[in-house]
Amino acid sequence: MKKNGKTFIISGPSGVGKSTVLAALFQGREDLYFSVSATTRDPRPGEIDGKDYHFITADAFRAMIGEDAFLEYAEYVGNFYGTPKKYVDEAMAQGKDAILDIEIQGANQVCAKRPETVRIFIAPPSWEELERRLTARGTDSPEKIQKRLLRAKVELESARCYDYLVINDTVEAAVDELRAILQAEHCRPAERIEQLAEN
Amino acid sequence: MKKNGKTFIISGPSGVGKSTVLAALFQGREDLYFSVSATTRDPRPGEIDGKDYHFITADAFRAMIGEDAFLEYAEYVGNFYGTPKKYVDEAMAQGKDAILDIEIQGANQVCAKRPETVRIFIAPPSWEELERRLTARGTDSPEKIQKRLLRAKVELESARCYDYLVINDTVEAAVDELRAILQAEHCRPAERIEQLAEN
Repeated sequence: MKKNGKTFIISGPSGVGKSTVLAALFQGREDLYFSVSATTRDPRPGEIDGKDYHFITADAFRAMIGEDAFLEYAEYVGNFYGTPKKYVDEAMAQGKDAILDIEIQGANQVCAKRPETVRIFIAPPSWEELERRLTARGTDSPEKIQKRLLRAKVELESARCYDYLVINDTVEAAVDELRAILQAEHCRPAERIEQLAEN
Repeated sequence: MKKNGKTFIISGPSGVGKSTVLAALFQGREDLYFSVSATTRDPRPGEIDGKDYHFITADAFRAMIGEDAFLEYAEYVGNFYGTPKKYVDEAMAQGKDAILDIEIQGANQVCAKRPETVRIFIAPPSWEELERRLTARGTDSPEKIQKRLLRAKVELESARCYDYLVINDTVEAAVDELRAILQAEHCRPAERIEQLAEN
């Protein structure tokens, strides 16, 4: 049975463990494409063009905005970041699901253009646990951690309008839920009836 | 994490293999409740009250209609059939998912009362395969089989407004998809944010 590729947005607050969960989700899954953002900032040591980011000039970025070549984009401390349509569309044309690791405002831009996009929010099991994880990273001051916690609570309110909310209690359980959501979303009638018509 | 019970409707045309799929889905799942209908028809030899049907009198059935005690009901060749709210609600209060094996018209009644109900339609992989399965049962005349096929095509059109469409190519794949759908539907933000608030 032919599978059509779909786009899934995965958002979540800093410290929730999203990268770990996504890495586990992608294990052995050739049918998933991880969207690589374009940016105008300089590569940091060790970053690879096309893998970490597509590193492009500000002129090239502006030209792409003019061509409506981004699903979403934003400016952050003087640099542009965006999700090029091209790679997402190529992956979906190959029957792969495109996974976009983007924030809520980017998610809103994507859904405005493509309402069929599925939005998943990764939440912590509790605020105490998120604080513990942020502290364990050892990268932020106590004040910065409190700011991140406050922001996470605001983001969770926005997640009410997401399609799904996965709680990252254990990585295994969170990945199991993500897999179920991806599989379930391929059982929508519109897609399936189209497949039946081909038989 | 506390799980709230949800109601799932599973519909599908005659011959699609729904009973086999449901039996496989229920294997080892203490967290699922299979809704038993009430009926005014007489028990057939071997049928057990409370297991195959809740056998009740026409007066009792009418009284229950008056008390709005059914999620849906219908009359069929002189007998009433209906889904009592009571057992479904008791199961959900225990955190179980209630599975209702009912037809499209009944599904519409349930969703009018409870729009949060999830509707899943089981479809055959092709019309040729459905015809083959109906023929293999050996219970219907060729004319009756053609009538069933026509009805199945009409039903599939109605299934466009269902939440999910599972294609029963193999029982194993169909059950796998049903499990994913049940799991994914428990990742909805409204339910989850409620659970987080309790932490």
